Amino acid sequence: METLYHQVADQVETLIRDGVFRDGERLPGVRVLSRQLGVSVATVLQAHQTLEGRGLLEPRERSGYFVRRPPVDAPEPAMSAQDVRPVPVTLRDMAMDLCSDEEKRMVPLATAVPHPDYLPIRQIQQASIWAARRGLESLDYAFPGKSAFRRQIAQRMAALGVAVSPDEILATNGAQEAIIMALRAVTSPGDIVAVESPSFPGILQALEVVGLKVIEIPAHPAEGLSLEGLQLAMDQWPIRACVAVTNHSNPMGMRLSDEHKQRLVSLLEDAGVPLIEDDIYGDLAHSGERPRPAKSFDRTGNVIYCSSFSKTISPGLRLGWIAPGRHFPAVRQQKYFTNLATATLPQIAVAHFLEQGGYDRYLRGARRTYRESVERLRSAVARYFPAGTAVSRPSGGFVLWVQLPANCSGTQVYRLARERGINVAPGIMFSTTGKYENCLRLNAANPWTPRIEEAVRTLGELSAAVLSD
Amino acid sequence: METLYHQVADQVETLIRDGVFRDGERLPGVRVLSRQLGVSVATVLQAHQTLEGRGLLEPRERSGYFVRRPPVDAPEPAMSAQDVRPVPVTLRDMAMDLCSDEEKRMVPLATAVPHPDYLPIRQIQQASIWAARRGLESLDYAFPGKSAFRRQIAQRMAALGVAVSPDEILATNGAQEAIIMALRAVTSPGDIVAVESPSFPGILQALEVVGLKVIEIPAHPAEGLSLEGLQLAMDQWPIRACVAVTNHSNPMGMRLSDEHKQRLVSLLEDAGVPLIEDDIYGDLAHSGERPRPAKSFDRTGNVIYCSSFSKTISPGLRLGWIAPGRHFPAVRQQKYFTNLATATLPQIAVAHFLEQGGYDRYLRGARRTYRESVERLRSAVARYFPAGTAVSRPSGGFVLWVQLPANCSGTQVYRLARERGINVAPGIMFSTTGKYENCLRLNAANPWTPRIEEAVRTLGELSAAVLSD
Repeated sequence: METLYHQVADQVETLIRDGVFRDGERLPGVRVLSRQLGVSVATVLQAHQTLEGRGLLEPRERSGYFVRRPPVDAPEPAMSAQDVRPVPVTLRDMAMDLCSDEEKRMVPLATAVPHPDYLPIRQIQQASIWAARRGLESLDYAFPGKSAFRRQIAQRMAALGVAVSPDEILATNGAQEAIIMALRAVTSPGDIVAVESPSFPGILQALEVVGLKVIEIPAHPAEGLSLEGLQLAMDQWPIRACVAVTNHSNPMGMRLSDEHKQRLVSLLEDAGVPLIEDDIYGDLAHSGERPRPAKSFDRTGNVIYCSSFSKTISPGLRLGWIAPGRHFPAVRQQKYFTNLATATLPQIAVAHFLEQGGYDRYLRGARRTYRESVERLRSAVARYFPAGTAVSRPSGGFVLWVQLPANCSGTQVYRLARERGINVAPGIMFSTTGKYENCLRLNAANPWTPRIEEAVRTLGELSAAVLSD
Repeated sequence: METLYHQVADQVETLIRDGVFRDGERLPGVRVLSRQLGVSVATVLQAHQTLEGRGLLEPRERSGYFVRRPPVDAPEPAMSAQDVRPVPVTLRDMAMDLCSDEEKRMVPLATAVPHPDYLPIRQIQQASIWAARRGLESLDYAFPGKSAFRRQIAQRMAALGVAVSPDEILATNGAQEAIIMALRAVTSPGDIVAVESPSFPGILQALEVVGLKVIEIPAHPAEGLSLEGLQLAMDQWPIRACVAVTNHSNPMGMRLSDEHKQRLVSLLEDAGVPLIEDDIYGDLAHSGERPRPAKSFDRTGNVIYCSSFSKTISPGLRLGWIAPGRHFPAVRQQKYFTNLATATLPQIAVAHFLEQGGYDRYLRGARRTYRESVERLRSAVARYFPAGTAVSRPSGGFVLWVQLPANCSGTQVYRLARERGINVAPGIMFSTTGKYENCLRLNAANPWTPRIEEAVRTLGELSAAVLSD
């Protein structure tokens, strides 16, 4: 339920974003706004407090509310350059360092894992107790997935314009496993796979573990994967699959338009190249409609759809799914040979949570929370980082992609930050070809505390220091 | 706690097995036995009922108890022949047919999955509810395993003579995933791996999915993997790993002696070949001490120990573990890249169940139940199958390996049986080289019902029919 004051806050935010009110300007008084917008003074005040929470307004004593948005705002990062040739993927242990026990004691800006306050812990706890009480039903094998779970997933996918039967869906241990199984089903070691760049490190790790070569396709910060870049790469190389995070990708947050998705699906279908779609952030669109997946434009079963509840319900459930289209038999065999089935109890718990409407209720609040959190962190980066820093403007999800001024080593900032107990993800993790040495990815899914704000300030100072070295 | 009447039943069983009482003979009257054994008449009667349950005695009205053991008993299968060369593994979809939904409606003699009556469903349900009530603790990421779970596993392993710290253990989605990760950690596609023969199909599937070649090593039905055969194979081929089920293997039920284990560990260590040990049946030894794992003789970290609770607590938990010795870093990376972590709630539930002593209590009863079930099915096979049939005599676990007379096609029996709603595992699944065409594997972990007995009789008749074709 969108409350009135949230509607007002959204209206004012749009005015600020559109430049109607500029940074440092004083907003019209609450009485004026109350009259203009036809709402009570109390509602305007509540809206102002919300916008303060979003980091967009600043109250000054006896003077009213001032727009706090940085004058120029940080620009968005530029599109990356096209790579010359595919390369084998060999990563470092860095990814594992990020989620070591040590990280839990550090300021957690590195991994794309929401703070527990952002998750429906209490509800899923109730659903788990409900599931545990089912006894045998929650404890027997569920290959290739519990039917109650698969039915709920099929219903949700239908609502997104994807017609799949429950029998065409497999439960997986998260989306990572889904992507790995998809890759193994449609490629052989040594094959070349196209991915958007910068790439979610988990996708690069999946390519490494399967023994594949990668060609990184440039992505526009707002529009996503360049179709021209993809076509160019396909003209040059025998590409066997393409992996793309179609909605609010990690790390850039870009969301492909429907038209873009449709063209991507056609392009790959015509070339006989399977599209492995990772849609784990789609449910976390910050506002408006839940975006459609590319799979909804798939008419031939060429799109292998992967998703999970790790970002939205809880990572420890390890519950995802895959709808492999015409590659179903190969993926089913991968699943069976690899670990037979996914744990049953989480499937029953999540099916119950979905069926009872709890998930949709949770998402309505979560979308706003994530929007505010991302905006707040974005503002802080713009405020504290050196001039020349660009930062992504995601319309969903909860990570920010920070591009430091050229020649400022993000890896160096990452190292210095760890010494100060702050964990961030260095840009080099997001490519195999060293393209993002001057970048960082930050996780915005943390309640805003002085400790977090201080950490962002420190990161800004460290960046400035590294820059002037 | 061994009750008195169980002790008496064991004594009488030994007398029967040793041939003191032969098939069809009448046992001494209960009063006589009561005097001879120095126990009450009631205890003797309880013991007789137990032996009736084990299929060894048959009451006849007004005549007392008669020994029911078949006169010759079925002999044990012979040792398989050594293969000439390694072969790539390519299996059929048969394995998946066995655990399709259809199987659930058939007489379930195929898959090595215990009937729910054999599992501590109620207790693990309670433990799951307990775990679900922990809230966040059961819902956050647990990479590479929840510490409470890893600590319990380390304690159990210490009791088996294996000194590993909780930090050297990773939680996995069952033992199958553990074996796959171990293989990926120590081999490259195209490498040769030695396995005992007949082999658990899951191991052959693991080799296939990793793209490995297999050399099948003969195994003695009682002593297990032939060390001479293994040495011979290692002299001839560059073997990169050896996979063995060391205690009550599936399908033969063989258990390596401590001395045999020690020699196996030394042989492989000297050759620099990692041993991947699968010990999922060790806790289901039918009597006496829980056998030690080969890992307990490992002084250099060369043994990668894999196990799970799928056979003992519940398959739907999908909870296993791996103690990879010196291969820990490589296995850890495999786990992280493949699906990050294992579901948390089952780990907390099982850790609680173990800590409270529930698992050990359960095992005491389960071992006896499995012994009785195996003996009962064994007797029925000896009774109903054609002359010339051999059947394994496992000292643990719950599967039987049935060797039909030469030229009797087990695959044909399997097909005909499915038409009659009976599911068995055909011998050809247990090798890549067609060695066990005349074999079947039967699952004994089902409550003995007329439906089951009728199915065994039908299998015997089908075998006789196929034989005379």
